[in-house]
Amino acid sequence: MEQYLTLFYGLSFLIAILAFAYAAYLYLWVKRQPISNKKIIEVAGLIKDGANTFMTREYKILAVFAAIIAALILLFLPSPIWSGEAMKNIGMAVSYIAGTVLSAIAGKIGILVASLSNGRAAEGAQKGIKPAFLIGFRGGAVMGLLVVGCSLFGVAAVLWVFGDASILLGFSFGASSLALFAKAGGGIFTKTADVSADLTGKVELGIPEDDPRNPAVIADNVGDNVGDVAGMGADLFDSNVAAMASALVIAQSLSGDFANISMVFCYGILGLLSSILGIATARISKKGTPTKALNSSTYVTTAIFMILTALATAFIPGFSWRIWGAATVGLLVGVIIGITTDYFTDDSKPIVKKAARASASGPAFTILSGVSYGFISAMPAMVGIAISALAAYKICEPMGAGYAIFGISMAAVGMLSIVGMIISNDAYGPIVDNARGLAEMGGLGEETIQIADELDSAGNTVKAVTKGFSISAAGLTVISLLGAFMSEVNDALAASGQELLTGFDIMDPTVFFGILVGAVIPAVFSAMLILGVDKNAQRMVKEIHRQFNEIKGLREGEEGVQPEYDKCIDIATTGSLRELIPAGMVSILATIFVGIIGGAKAVGGFLLGNIVSGLLLALFMSNAGGLWDNSKKYVEAGNEGGKGSNAHKAAVIGDTVGDPFKDTAGPSINTQITVVSLVASLLSAVFAAFSIFG
Amino acid sequence: MEQYLTLFYGLSFLIAILAFAYAAYLYLWVKRQPISNKKIIEVAGLIKDGANTFMTREYKILAVFAAIIAALILLFLPSPIWSGEAMKNIGMAVSYIAGTVLSAIAGKIGILVASLSNGRAAEGAQKGIKPAFLIGFRGGAVMGLLVVGCSLFGVAAVLWVFGDASILLGFSFGASSLALFAKAGGGIFTKTADVSADLTGKVELGIPEDDPRNPAVIADNVGDNVGDVAGMGADLFDSNVAAMASALVIAQSLSGDFANISMVFCYGILGLLSSILGIATARISKKGTPTKALNSSTYVTTAIFMILTALATAFIPGFSWRIWGAATVGLLVGVIIGITTDYFTDDSKPIVKKAARASASGPAFTILSGVSYGFISAMPAMVGIAISALAAYKICEPMGAGYAIFGISMAAVGMLSIVGMIISNDAYGPIVDNARGLAEMGGLGEETIQIADELDSAGNTVKAVTKGFSISAAGLTVISLLGAFMSEVNDALAASGQELLTGFDIMDPTVFFGILVGAVIPAVFSAMLILGVDKNAQRMVKEIHRQFNEIKGLREGEEGVQPEYDKCIDIATTGSLRELIPAGMVSILATIFVGIIGGAKAVGGFLLGNIVSGLLLALFMSNAGGLWDNSKKYVEAGNEGGKGSNAHKAAVIGDTVGDPFKDTAGPSINTQITVVSLVASLLSAVFAAFSIFG
Repeated sequence: MEQYLTLFYGLSFLIAILAFAYAAYLYLWVKRQPISNKKIIEVAGLIKDGANTFMTREYKILAVFAAIIAALILLFLPSPIWSGEAMKNIGMAVSYIAGTVLSAIAGKIGILVASLSNGRAAEGAQKGIKPAFLIGFRGGAVMGLLVVGCSLFGVAAVLWVFGDASILLGFSFGASSLALFAKAGGGIFTKTADVSADLTGKVELGIPEDDPRNPAVIADNVGDNVGDVAGMGADLFDSNVAAMASALVIAQSLSGDFANISMVFCYGILGLLSSILGIATARISKKGTPTKALNSSTYVTTAIFMILTALATAFIPGFSWRIWGAATVGLLVGVIIGITTDYFTDDSKPIVKKAARASASGPAFTILSGVSYGFISAMPAMVGIAISALAAYKICEPMGAGYAIFGISMAAVGMLSIVGMIISNDAYGPIVDNARGLAEMGGLGEETIQIADELDSAGNTVKAVTKGFSISAAGLTVISLLGAFMSEVNDALAASGQELLTGFDIMDPTVFFGILVGAVIPAVFSAMLILGVDKNAQRMVKEIHRQFNEIKGLREGEEGVQPEYDKCIDIATTGSLRELIPAGMVSILATIFVGIIGGAKAVGGFLLGNIVSGLLLALFMSNAGGLWDNSKKYVEAGNEGGKGSNAHKAAVIGDTVGDPFKDTAGPSINTQITVVSLVASLLSAVFAAFSIFG
Repeated sequence: MEQYLTLFYGLSFLIAILAFAYAAYLYLWVKRQPISNKKIIEVAGLIKDGANTFMTREYKILAVFAAIIAALILLFLPSPIWSGEAMKNIGMAVSYIAGTVLSAIAGKIGILVASLSNGRAAEGAQKGIKPAFLIGFRGGAVMGLLVVGCSLFGVAAVLWVFGDASILLGFSFGASSLALFAKAGGGIFTKTADVSADLTGKVELGIPEDDPRNPAVIADNVGDNVGDVAGMGADLFDSNVAAMASALVIAQSLSGDFANISMVFCYGILGLLSSILGIATARISKKGTPTKALNSSTYVTTAIFMILTALATAFIPGFSWRIWGAATVGLLVGVIIGITTDYFTDDSKPIVKKAARASASGPAFTILSGVSYGFISAMPAMVGIAISALAAYKICEPMGAGYAIFGISMAAVGMLSIVGMIISNDAYGPIVDNARGLAEMGGLGEETIQIADELDSAGNTVKAVTKGFSISAAGLTVISLLGAFMSEVNDALAASGQELLTGFDIMDPTVFFGILVGAVIPAVFSAMLILGVDKNAQRMVKEIHRQFNEIKGLREGEEGVQPEYDKCIDIATTGSLRELIPAGMVSILATIFVGIIGGAKAVGGFLLGNIVSGLLLALFMSNAGGLWDNSKKYVEAGNEGGKGSNAHKAAVIGDTVGDPFKDTAGPSINTQITVVSLVASLLSAVFAAFSIFG
């Protein structure tokens, strides 16, 4: 079988390079699109510069952080460097850095293309919805292709060079570290700017969203890119790498042929290929809408992937139909979860309308109904994940010991197979959101703005779906990370001649202790991020007030008077990183605390508690936030009294609450869970060797 | 050792009767206190009648429900009646009914005394704070004494008569059924009335709280009694019985002497005795405040209990210091959790002030800060429960197999030992809350109202503490119920010759499946209750509008014109029961669904998921609600702009959101968890015998 493995390494590199080439083609295509409006060029430039400011500063801090972690890894992981296996330590440290760097590159280029696309999409909207859609979508697709290409390339390279799947945990941890900064830091950034812009602009001064007089308006636009393009990309890079890494760690521990490892790569390759085909064929059909175009390309990708993997399973010796079944279950459940999420957050469906009706009784009812439906919306996804994990396990159980948990990890790989398409859809959102703002600032006229609005609205709808998808994917991934953790602990126990773990029994009080502590961490983490947004927004509001008071003619919109946009970007940047680090540290320190108290068993429980409450809270917050956002839009479209009514005021309050829920805390919990799972796996030898009660 | 057991049965009955006698004395004492103001007598009468209306209707529906369940139990539990052990089925059904009836009696009398006390406390406030405090406190203490007396009496009687601890699960399930109606139904009732009264009175008409023109005002006052006196009493009756029942089930399975069973009763007896002493000595000291008086009597009770149990352990042969240690750990952690809850909800502490400051930026920030601090506030309690369970287990582990989990159940018994005192403190709250309203309606003058206000504020502070305590107690209790569930499953497996369970491994996908489904149930249950309040409040608001429009002179407050209070009470009653039943059914059906899919193992996981997310959400919602309530009061006391300011408006919105959080959903989750745990235990034989994947 080894020749197959070599073949799949080769194919992985090849397809990754194909994805890069196609991304380059799309990049050049976007760049060729015309842009001429001076105001748009100017503002798009400001957005680009702002995004660069944030990313440069973020990467600088991250570089220090990563250097420290890499040094610690070099010294201590997987075992102290003086214990003899220095090569492993070096491999782990190098692959850790590679994980951060590859993710950073994908993010950086993705942002660059996004900021090229927004202005062009705005001008494209003058010609109609189809060309504008294509610019927005292809701009986003660059990010999707880069992320999946980089993750496949990176995983294959690390395993090929070091030949040991546990080194991949280092690579995955690198990806997670970056995702923590990009997703949670970006989430704080974007909502700081959004909330401050709304509070001072819409609420205090009564000027429209995206009014150029508002000093926070550029920061707000930058935030869309930073939070949704770079953040979401890093998040899904992280999940994708973690899913492959844990599948490979488990595959390696299975009885010794290479078919399982080959299968992981094969599914990764075919997933990327399907995404390329899906992206290449995406366009608005004759009678189509942007939403339909986005959704149908997702379905196309899904179908292609299922067919290609079925063919691979049929023709490649050693590939199992059971594993194919597990991956397919994962993928289908992912799509179904996306659809149910849509039910709770789409404004053509009853739930959003109910929330809008509740707003007519006042803001308290907006909040109560959003919280309630948010809670209920978590059910289909949680039950779906539960069933897919159970089904994948049962499908693969007959294959022998260890295969059942491998089946779960392959369900995660299957769910994430279409991630290239998902990221493309997701990155489309902020691009057309910015395009809408630019169309307004550039004075492109009502009709163009309306087209941009339609594109933007599709972005919002699809965003809810991709968010539900990415949370669920992270859910399945971390289940398999739990498997990877156990396999790492047992390696450590075996090495020191101790009895192996057979599982984590919830009746064991050290496990139970871990579960309870683990369950509260996502709540605390979310709270710290939300409070971070709050604190940071207060700083920015103060700065905006200062500018309106001190800069003459700004409030009145005199010709030539400009606010100091960069000051606001500065505040958002510094503050977001300042608020993020304590939240990340609490999660990591809690893992270590639990490990020292209760040992590896307690950490197993801790991961479980973390996953369970993390999934629940992430789904709740993302969906409640999406619901409030769309419910506000529904009212603004003239329902329940329309703009300016009491229902509208209440709906705006709901949306403001929902913003940090859906764009900061909710989607960052994924990353928090992955980080904690990887910290646990990396420190497994420490926890296996020493604990107070373990 | 058997003579000891007989002794403890006898002592249990004796002390329970002593508690009843003391309750009767306090009842007569309260009744002797003067009441003369006509308006107060009239309104207090209306409140009493309203509470009776609710309870009569509730008990009628409950009787039907209980009869159906009792018939099902008779036919099928613990095993089908035709399988030979008919006596067990009869015992189970009878003790189920006994559980509902005893709890109902305690609730009924408790409400009666509360409605005697409120008017007298209002008039007592004319003489000063000390006599008024005593009336409020002693009125509440009747409920405390009855609840603990009834639970001790009932548990001892059931075990004495049937000689089989597993029959106690039937008794406990009876208590839970009633608690579900009383706590969740009462919670919907009270918030329906509260929200409607506020919306129409304070918001629309700008008339003060407790203004007699408002048709919902009596329903609001009734709600305080129904939700907090009867509901909280039933909830803690439920927890107390469940803690004793699961300790006894586990004790029975331990190697055969009677010392362990005796110890459970001994701790129950000494707990009740300590509460009696604590209640008898409670009064405001020379320089004291009501809050200090309530808290210090809790500490006195705690200290007495620890000393008495230490003496019992020292002098009674067969009693173990390790078990004493476990119970003490439970009790101390309970007290500590109470104190940390106070930190998050007391308006003299920084958190409430921060939330008030956030309100100055608008309602969205009130909500965001409350949600954030609510999440964080769950941490000390979750970690405290985790540590106490771990410590209790480790303390008792050296005693032999099975003792460790017995240790956890004794930690729950220890934590609940002071429950008589806790209920007294808690029932004090609604009495003085009503007294405040009555003082206003009776026109007793500013000074008296101010005293009543001070008493009320102490009630609110203490309420937050007792809520944290009761949630934590339920947390520990359900952990031991999980132990009881496993022991029941193993009995069933042993009976049918199958292999016994050794635990629930989270790596087992059926367990994992159960965990994920279990975790989402408390969220869905809470959401359904909150939406229930919302729907019900809409019905009541409509009725209030009708009355203001149709009853001439009502709005203007003409002499002799009265609203139709009973219509509002009717709506609250019918609606609360209508909204409650689906929520309860979802929880029970989910348990059965999981059991049928995954068998006993999945149900074990389901209970765990339920406990973990239930604790998290219950703590979050109760504390966030308490925080918003006190933050509004803090603003009303003149901070952040005081009454009428924007901060005040925002704080009022926070309080409205918090109301169903803290008085409906949050504290009902306890009951939901207990109900589900008991359903699982009762159906254990079914799940052990049949499942699709188990």
